[in-house]
Amino acid sequence: MSKFNNIKKIIVKKPLKLDCGQTINNFPLAYETYGKLNDKKNNAILIFHALTGDQFASGINPITKKDGWWSYALGPGKAIDTDKYFIIAANVIGGCMGSFGPSDINPDTNKPYGTNFPVLTINDMVNAQYNLLEHFKIEKLFSVIGGSMGGMQVLQFVSNFPDKAFTAIPIACTASHSAQNIALNELGRQSIMADRNWEDGFYEEKNKQPDKGLAVARMAAHITYLSKAGLQEKFGRKLQERDDLKFSFDADFQIESYLRYQGSVFVDRFDANSYLYITRAMDYFDLTKRFDGNLSKAFEKSDTKFFIISFTSDWLYPTSENREIVIALNAIGKNVGFVEISSDKGHDSFLLDVPDFLNTVKNFLNTSYKKIK
Amino acid sequence: MSKFNNIKKIIVKKPLKLDCGQTINNFPLAYETYGKLNDKKNNAILIFHALTGDQFASGINPITKKDGWWSYALGPGKAIDTDKYFIIAANVIGGCMGSFGPSDINPDTNKPYGTNFPVLTINDMVNAQYNLLEHFKIEKLFSVIGGSMGGMQVLQFVSNFPDKAFTAIPIACTASHSAQNIALNELGRQSIMADRNWEDGFYEEKNKQPDKGLAVARMAAHITYLSKAGLQEKFGRKLQERDDLKFSFDADFQIESYLRYQGSVFVDRFDANSYLYITRAMDYFDLTKRFDGNLSKAFEKSDTKFFIISFTSDWLYPTSENREIVIALNAIGKNVGFVEISSDKGHDSFLLDVPDFLNTVKNFLNTSYKKIK
Repeated sequence: MSKFNNIKKIIVKKPLKLDCGQTINNFPLAYETYGKLNDKKNNAILIFHALTGDQFASGINPITKKDGWWSYALGPGKAIDTDKYFIIAANVIGGCMGSFGPSDINPDTNKPYGTNFPVLTINDMVNAQYNLLEHFKIEKLFSVIGGSMGGMQVLQFVSNFPDKAFTAIPIACTASHSAQNIALNELGRQSIMADRNWEDGFYEEKNKQPDKGLAVARMAAHITYLSKAGLQEKFGRKLQERDDLKFSFDADFQIESYLRYQGSVFVDRFDANSYLYITRAMDYFDLTKRFDGNLSKAFEKSDTKFFIISFTSDWLYPTSENREIVIALNAIGKNVGFVEISSDKGHDSFLLDVPDFLNTVKNFLNTSYKKIK
Repeated sequence: MSKFNNIKKIIVKKPLKLDCGQTINNFPLAYETYGKLNDKKNNAILIFHALTGDQFASGINPITKKDGWWSYALGPGKAIDTDKYFIIAANVIGGCMGSFGPSDINPDTNKPYGTNFPVLTINDMVNAQYNLLEHFKIEKLFSVIGGSMGGMQVLQFVSNFPDKAFTAIPIACTASHSAQNIALNELGRQSIMADRNWEDGFYEEKNKQPDKGLAVARMAAHITYLSKAGLQEKFGRKLQERDDLKFSFDADFQIESYLRYQGSVFVDRFDANSYLYITRAMDYFDLTKRFDGNLSKAFEKSDTKFFIISFTSDWLYPTSENREIVIALNAIGKNVGFVEISSDKGHDSFLLDVPDFLNTVKNFLNTSYKKIK
């Protein structure tokens, strides 16, 4: 755990009853903040990360030494403006950047939890992060924002805490994880579990890492984050540093080399068990379930102003699934805006330099903020 | 090789120069036939199989004891009518059902070739199968038909042998393998190569099988063969023999159980090296390459009547890519029909009971056959 010594965290003392039935307490929740909380404490935004994200949304991630995952969107003068707003980002529980996760030591065994860690849900993740509001003594957030799994957390947050956010921006997400997305996550899990070093999830205590399986899982996921057209435009059939086909299984094509690279760098920064637990939480996400299949009921008590964003070339969380959330909110007369952004960058659009998207977020936030000031 | 003792094969004596530069000869080509060749020898159809297919297109596959891969389309009274036509189906070279492949014994080492087998192309596969015309003393085929990689072989066959087929039906295919499809194939290869039993491809001589990696590759491919809507309709979030989530990594959802099953049965019938070699051949397929990027030129000398078929929900080889072939043929005034069949069964539509598709093939063949009789 030494590499996490210098990162910020709170210890959540209050017991948290998980959906699986277990109760956890005294667990760490790692977080980062950007900007300053104003005196009225009405400029706070809680952002939620996606599957492989963490609390280091902007600036240089001190562990990976790379740019934060939302550097395009978050910073001084940017869409989520750190000159104006106070942004809180936590690492989800189940993650591997300092929050309570499967790499933590199980006090019962004095070894890492591994797959003895409890299976979590998006609901559990959101309930854990709610403690940050109390920590910062924030009565009501100005906004909750997130893309992909972060968007699911936005939906869950508003449903759980209907009076705790003035605005909410769920981006490129869904209210109910689809069969195709469950299938794709299962593919990643099976790839990890097929690795020679898997050891039923207790690889850490044996000083092993199922890195090859994790790399393949990442490659699979990466393909789904991009669009067919985007891949064709960026890579097409371009060859990797050679004039002609090599008639071998080396990376002849640039796309092959790119994927291998994506897989190899991922294993240096991510834990295989966290990948399992977080994908499982995504698969379990179905906000309609506890409301008899009626999504509108999930938001019935909310006074939050929604703005929902999807991307034309996102085939993982397509516009149709985002629109279902809009329809559910409209059906009960809630305040909801919606825009489908044209982009050929696929699901990854929310993480990239897509000006229409970034301007949309910026304008919605700034216009809304004027109304509550 | 004993399991292949009773299957039909020819030994190709004539040297075949492969695209990689190597020359092979005296190699086995396993095949099957259905129906009877008529006296005029004008009722012969050569069908080409897809990635994991073989020569056993109809009836019971004697090795797997399961229905042939094209049982819906091929048989007495069916779309490809064995009462009328004489159908020849060969196992591609590089395959694992009796044709020359990486499991064969390398005479230089007395061990299986493994990854010392030459890297093949679709062109090589088609040139090998051309020997069957000479074997059966067929001057001109009535038709060449195939879906997916089979469709690529159809295109290559007509390009290589422009006066050897009256008609051609390329189904759900492309003239140039896309970046996304290269990426998906590379994912499968990396999964196999990550397996503990991979042994750089020389697993057979060590009595090992990279079965877990191959199963994950199959799972990945299987997801791509189905459509998002089809998966949602068939599986949705249905649970597998349980009333509620189990909060574990077992197969909670039916889609997970289905994928695991698909992976596990596949490894019993398919060789990991064949998977590598055949996907590589698909990735290398770009019919425009030797024609300066002009697909029309590939068919310039052909008098073949084309009928091209795509499926609405096929995202692997979408209508747009099939239509490019139609456009290239139209540009030089060739005889070409085209239909996009409505189906939510994805790329797999050509293998399944899709009546509009089957009727289309049947009508095209029977109408065309009347003209040459």
